[in-house]
Amino acid sequence: MPVRLAEPDTLLPVPGIRLGVARAGIRYPDRDDLVVMEVSEGCRCAAVFTTNAFSAAPVNLARLHLSEAAPRYLLINSGNANAGTGDRGLADAVACCRATAEHTACDVRNVLPFSTGVIGEPLPVQNIREAIPRALEQLQQSGWLQAARAIMTTDTVAKGSSRRFHVDREVITVTGIAKGAGMIRPDMATMLAFVATDARVQPDLLQASLQQTVNKSFNRITVDGDTSTNDACVLLATGASGVTEIDSPTHPAYAAFTEALDAVCRELAQAIVRDGEGAHRFVTVRVENGASEDECLAVAYAVAHSPLVKTALFAGDPNWGRILAAVGRAGVDGLDIAHVGIQLDDVSIVEHGARAHGYTEEQGQAVMKQDEITLRIQLGRGEQHATVWTTDLSYDYVRINAEYRT
Amino acid sequence: MPVRLAEPDTLLPVPGIRLGVARAGIRYPDRDDLVVMEVSEGCRCAAVFTTNAFSAAPVNLARLHLSEAAPRYLLINSGNANAGTGDRGLADAVACCRATAEHTACDVRNVLPFSTGVIGEPLPVQNIREAIPRALEQLQQSGWLQAARAIMTTDTVAKGSSRRFHVDREVITVTGIAKGAGMIRPDMATMLAFVATDARVQPDLLQASLQQTVNKSFNRITVDGDTSTNDACVLLATGASGVTEIDSPTHPAYAAFTEALDAVCRELAQAIVRDGEGAHRFVTVRVENGASEDECLAVAYAVAHSPLVKTALFAGDPNWGRILAAVGRAGVDGLDIAHVGIQLDDVSIVEHGARAHGYTEEQGQAVMKQDEITLRIQLGRGEQHATVWTTDLSYDYVRINAEYRT
Repeated sequence: MPVRLAEPDTLLPVPGIRLGVARAGIRYPDRDDLVVMEVSEGCRCAAVFTTNAFSAAPVNLARLHLSEAAPRYLLINSGNANAGTGDRGLADAVACCRATAEHTACDVRNVLPFSTGVIGEPLPVQNIREAIPRALEQLQQSGWLQAARAIMTTDTVAKGSSRRFHVDREVITVTGIAKGAGMIRPDMATMLAFVATDARVQPDLLQASLQQTVNKSFNRITVDGDTSTNDACVLLATGASGVTEIDSPTHPAYAAFTEALDAVCRELAQAIVRDGEGAHRFVTVRVENGASEDECLAVAYAVAHSPLVKTALFAGDPNWGRILAAVGRAGVDGLDIAHVGIQLDDVSIVEHGARAHGYTEEQGQAVMKQDEITLRIQLGRGEQHATVWTTDLSYDYVRINAEYRT
Repeated sequence: MPVRLAEPDTLLPVPGIRLGVARAGIRYPDRDDLVVMEVSEGCRCAAVFTTNAFSAAPVNLARLHLSEAAPRYLLINSGNANAGTGDRGLADAVACCRATAEHTACDVRNVLPFSTGVIGEPLPVQNIREAIPRALEQLQQSGWLQAARAIMTTDTVAKGSSRRFHVDREVITVTGIAKGAGMIRPDMATMLAFVATDARVQPDLLQASLQQTVNKSFNRITVDGDTSTNDACVLLATGASGVTEIDSPTHPAYAAFTEALDAVCRELAQAIVRDGEGAHRFVTVRVENGASEDECLAVAYAVAHSPLVKTALFAGDPNWGRILAAVGRAGVDGLDIAHVGIQLDDVSIVEHGARAHGYTEEQGQAVMKQDEITLRIQLGRGEQHATVWTTDLSYDYVRINAEYRT
């Protein structure tokens, strides 16, 4: 039950990028589950990966290949994460990359592998090998939406976003797709996002831009607090537009580029939360007036991860005591309750660390009936702030994650 | 649905301690909800309190009184936590202590207040005031079980434990009661434990003993990771036994004393988990071969708090991929997957970071059908270990916590 989320009408092609899909029969019958993304020669690539120590074989191999060569092909499969598969998993990922390289006459190191799906089962390499030429035959610039559908696991809606902006008389496009709905049934552990632009961007600046935008988007969402083993976000800059290389933050296109990149990544990140497992509500937790951004984030995550706050959100219960208790346990050194304030949208529920003067349960319940809620918290200690997006914790979350893998 | 938990048959009286209960009508009709515990002159008292920055008014007042005078009376109410109640909450707690002091001709600072129940509602001081003399009339050495029942909130079973040991020809008793089942419906936030002994213990050693035992018991349990605003554990040593003062770890009774104290606190702590909200299983998470106890604890809590691990436990699904993912995100610096092993009871499910050789789903499922499970994890980095106790995450947890407060 996604919260105000529909498949994108239009995903703008990005010159220099072509996508093809195929049915490899990895896990899901009768749907595409393999994507090949072709990247033009000279395309720059930035990437961030999961911080989980149990990073999956494709994550490790993609990191290695990226450090050795420029990517020409991204090979993405859904249905199997190729995680927790040991040495065999690594060999399987290499075999899939090699098959792609053979069909396209590039080096194996020019292929980056990505997998999402069940943990701990061997990758069906033969299925993937056979499907690769079919995906290559289908390569087209307008393949973004089909690719977004093919990388879904228990996502209920395909996720994509595009922005276009002008620099003098030239046009630059940023388009991205993502998948993820929590650590997904049955064992999935995967948020994947692929964003491309035809801007030409200096490599270090490209990586810095990606890190900055990820910290404001994918690194600010949580469904259940369970960091996955396969997370990856890739940013490709083909340089096919007519705009000169964006080589520093003072370049005339830099501001518009990062704005478009932020907008695409924020929309994709929020789409993952809106499609969160069992989600009934989309909740923005904004913590303000902290002494540092880190302490604002610590409070925001303590609130966003609290099972008690999340079940109250599910129930539509303006249970400020639970929010207050979560703020209190967030580990903010020397936090003074007397300065803490909390609002649900525009309704003040806590002032000076206690129930707000004149607040009535009816006011709070009216806000909590909505499917989108902003929860604002002031710490009264400084000027910093941070925002995270999350969902409620419902019966459906338990059902989805308690069902057997078989 | 408590997991293998029954009301204690016998709670041994502790010379120097008398308990009385009464119906104050704070929240629950037709049951006792107020306890007065009388402590003999010269009794030593150690205490630990919640680390939540939003500590409740009674916690703050008890801390203050303890620093100023030796306690003679503990006044404990259920049904209302007197938390998030600001200055009025503090004044209300003082008023209740003063009423107790007036009836017993002691100083207000000799009374320690404890409250458990709904957050954010004013304490019904008049009800409590009127009930205090009735509780005082009932004071008796054998009042432990009635007191354990009176401090329950959504607990389904009264929790208590006793141990007795001999030193030469003398006998020393340790008896304790506790309440708690998570952050409890509707807003509760409270684990309370009261343990008493007739040993005479040097005050600093008493506090150190309590801290040590709490770190091995109450600080090692988690139902939902939500630290409460009202947690408190009090250890009273009346000195009424004939044993000489335990004034150092080399005293002949020290080892037996701490062993009995550990046993009582562990039993109480485990009882809280067994009665955890919506609990179907009692799970021991033991992390071994870590480089430090802290990293073992970090891994144990990452696993015990993971909603994905907990829903798999509810489902009886031996989902080792989720356990492995939780281990991987626990923040252990430089953790090498290749050394990680995991067992469900005696069944090896993960070896060298991948599915164990010869492991079958049937073996794992056989263990997961049990209502008590031990999950052991080896990090392969050292000699340290740590254990925490937890429950599964069930529909009932969501139901209990999603119900409205009204």
